[in-house]
Amino acid sequence: MTHPTALESKFRRGEAHLRCIACGNLQADAGANFRCSTCGDLLEIFYQGWSGDAAGDLKSLWQQRKLSREAVDQSGVWRFRELLPSLLSLEDAITLREGNTPLYSLPRCARIAGVEHLQAKHQGMNPTGSFKDTGMTAAASFARQHAFQWVACASTGNTSASMAAYASRGGLRSLVLLPEGKISWGKLSQALDYGAVTCQLKTDFDGCMQVLNQVVQRAPVYLLNSVNPYRIEGQKTAAIELMEQLNWQPPDHIIVPGGNLGNSSAIGKACLEMKELGLISRLPKISIIQAAGANPLVRAMRDNGGQSITPVQAETMATAIRIGNPASWKKAVRILKATGGTVDEVSEVEIALAKAEIGADGVGCEPASAVTLAGLKKLVKRGFVTPSDNVVLILTGHLLKDPEFTLNFHRGELLVGNQQEANMLARQRRAPVVLDATVDAVLKVLNGQGN
Amino acid sequence: MTHPTALESKFRRGEAHLRCIACGNLQADAGANFRCSTCGDLLEIFYQGWSGDAAGDLKSLWQQRKLSREAVDQSGVWRFRELLPSLLSLEDAITLREGNTPLYSLPRCARIAGVEHLQAKHQGMNPTGSFKDTGMTAAASFARQHAFQWVACASTGNTSASMAAYASRGGLRSLVLLPEGKISWGKLSQALDYGAVTCQLKTDFDGCMQVLNQVVQRAPVYLLNSVNPYRIEGQKTAAIELMEQLNWQPPDHIIVPGGNLGNSSAIGKACLEMKELGLISRLPKISIIQAAGANPLVRAMRDNGGQSITPVQAETMATAIRIGNPASWKKAVRILKATGGTVDEVSEVEIALAKAEIGADGVGCEPASAVTLAGLKKLVKRGFVTPSDNVVLILTGHLLKDPEFTLNFHRGELLVGNQQEANMLARQRRAPVVLDATVDAVLKVLNGQGN
Repeated sequence: MTHPTALESKFRRGEAHLRCIACGNLQADAGANFRCSTCGDLLEIFYQGWSGDAAGDLKSLWQQRKLSREAVDQSGVWRFRELLPSLLSLEDAITLREGNTPLYSLPRCARIAGVEHLQAKHQGMNPTGSFKDTGMTAAASFARQHAFQWVACASTGNTSASMAAYASRGGLRSLVLLPEGKISWGKLSQALDYGAVTCQLKTDFDGCMQVLNQVVQRAPVYLLNSVNPYRIEGQKTAAIELMEQLNWQPPDHIIVPGGNLGNSSAIGKACLEMKELGLISRLPKISIIQAAGANPLVRAMRDNGGQSITPVQAETMATAIRIGNPASWKKAVRILKATGGTVDEVSEVEIALAKAEIGADGVGCEPASAVTLAGLKKLVKRGFVTPSDNVVLILTGHLLKDPEFTLNFHRGELLVGNQQEANMLARQRRAPVVLDATVDAVLKVLNGQGN
Repeated sequence: MTHPTALESKFRRGEAHLRCIACGNLQADAGANFRCSTCGDLLEIFYQGWSGDAAGDLKSLWQQRKLSREAVDQSGVWRFRELLPSLLSLEDAITLREGNTPLYSLPRCARIAGVEHLQAKHQGMNPTGSFKDTGMTAAASFARQHAFQWVACASTGNTSASMAAYASRGGLRSLVLLPEGKISWGKLSQALDYGAVTCQLKTDFDGCMQVLNQVVQRAPVYLLNSVNPYRIEGQKTAAIELMEQLNWQPPDHIIVPGGNLGNSSAIGKACLEMKELGLISRLPKISIIQAAGANPLVRAMRDNGGQSITPVQAETMATAIRIGNPASWKKAVRILKATGGTVDEVSEVEIALAKAEIGADGVGCEPASAVTLAGLKKLVKRGFVTPSDNVVLILTGHLLKDPEFTLNFHRGELLVGNQQEANMLARQRRAPVVLDATVDAVLKVLNGQGN
């Protein structure tokens, strides 16, 4: 057993500052809403003065922590704490042993997409079943460190589940605001179990966000929506862990689902920082795939090179990325440009097909995650990804997050546009067959399947 | 990076034999049905000739493998391969990085139950969301090693999900048999996604099992129901990993949910073997809790000290342990006696309450897992567990395995027997409140909650 304080490094930790992503304004305090006090845009954390010559030292430090029995060392987020703001104290860390997610080869998906080397970093294997946990451990810990007793978000999905878990874990109370009447009970079940207080407001989602923005200014409630820059810091550790798993040899491409665009921003930020520190010697291209029905970033890149974004009315069965007005779009555009990545969009049928293909590799994921494989197929066809490239898909949510989607697919209840698409789906469909209870009937099915 | 072959130990691996649990008959081959060729009872694996003086060596070997990038070393099952049958070859290992599950403290549950030291080993954090994965990696690997192309089970729940995932992962095909008309689509969604062939037979569950027992004798299909002794070997690693997490200091009590009784048998088997090898110096008491509506083991222990078991018509909302005729009851009785554990049963209301309490500690689990906390309360009241004892609960399934149960609870749709129970549940209920979309309305709710 190695106590964490015994693990020292020659690395000098950078001083963390809050900086506006638009006007560059530095500010000491994030305020209640994490907005620039000058121009109102988002804040990010940047580090000043960290030493860049301790890469080997850091790598071995992080490895050694795997042998420790301390909770913060067993966390796949806090294990990399040298690249997190030092004001996040270990004593206040609220951890569920998040991170530590597997990197799976996807041999059949690779053949389907036409690449030789395809892997998936499965962030859906986090404790509450989505990548949100890696960010929530950091931001919820910040809340506790600053003596907040309440945290809050407007969300009906993965964010509220993760927030509620970390709040309970840390002895905090949590508040979830959601629009009345549009409640998705399935998505809310985790938040209820973890003890969140949930309020259905007589308004839409934007209305909930507006009320919440005022609540956090009038009461000591800590905002945990994705504008919170500490969430981004926690989420970026997924990329650090990925590089460690790859023995610090970056892949050629990382492909990320695009919803609110915080996750692609976080992964890109980590890559830029790792490059700066000499932990990796080159940048992977980070590309972002959106559902065609929720594609504001794709449109922005196509129409104006990412200078401005026009919100869309989002519609996709991949609910985790059903976002028409993504909060972190400017951060994402910066990552696309800095790494040389691209964007693309995929149809509902392409998503469903890709999800079944990932499942058939024994992995499984929620629909939003499957846009990565669907998008990869297009990037290969476009020539942006070449067959010999190393590709890593970021899977963001667990298969169990959305069993209904899986069932509708295999029961043939998915609506499709044309016969060609219907045929494609039918080939992947695995509906149960009804048989007499005889050995011969079962053997006939087996023989009919070939191998 | 440490290559596994570079990690050697002075430990001499035991020769694995198949032995009948009833008549002790040794047999070289398990047959297609894993039954004793003499008396028809279950087979188990036992080890002959392993050296008992290498405990420290094994402990450090297993620790060092945590630093390896090899898939078999990253598995929480294969990392402990010295205690698995050596005929399971590493080349054929099918792994999803199972095991490696967290050990959580449960501070609030501890106060509620009246003990000082309470932890939960969360086997629901395995890749497909249940403890079945640790057994399935071993048994599915055995199937591949023996050139089977098909594996099969009769199940609609966690077993079929796990089997389908490992089969796909290993390039095998999988067959699930289930009774027609009683299909639980939600539970089946994972098996479909992972590519299983599912057949609904016009019979009941026992009828499915009978057909399957004949199918595996007439066709090269490998049986993966719980009678498969390799599943038990894989599952026992959870206890080894637990002891490692506890720095090889056994707790006073381990409390396990009782359904088919394979899991309690596996955990007990591991403890006995670890004691024999000097890895631990004393045995924890292993106790088994059943739902009152599915309590054949509790009845057997009460009525005849576990000499015989009478099947019951099982009924409980904790579907994962809704089993009236448990296959591994003899193995479980042996563990109860060898470790000095006990049994108890808990009501539906007690299960629901315990589940909400575990959730409020930020952890969450499926209903069957919650019987452990509900049972602990009773064991404390009985004086079997004393307040200063160290207690570990085994949580077997992920919260997302059964969102409906959670929702019914918080929506107040759970049927209860009397007013006292209804009041108990109401105190844990967290149904959403509907509000006007104003800051004042939300603040009023917050103020009403206290902290």
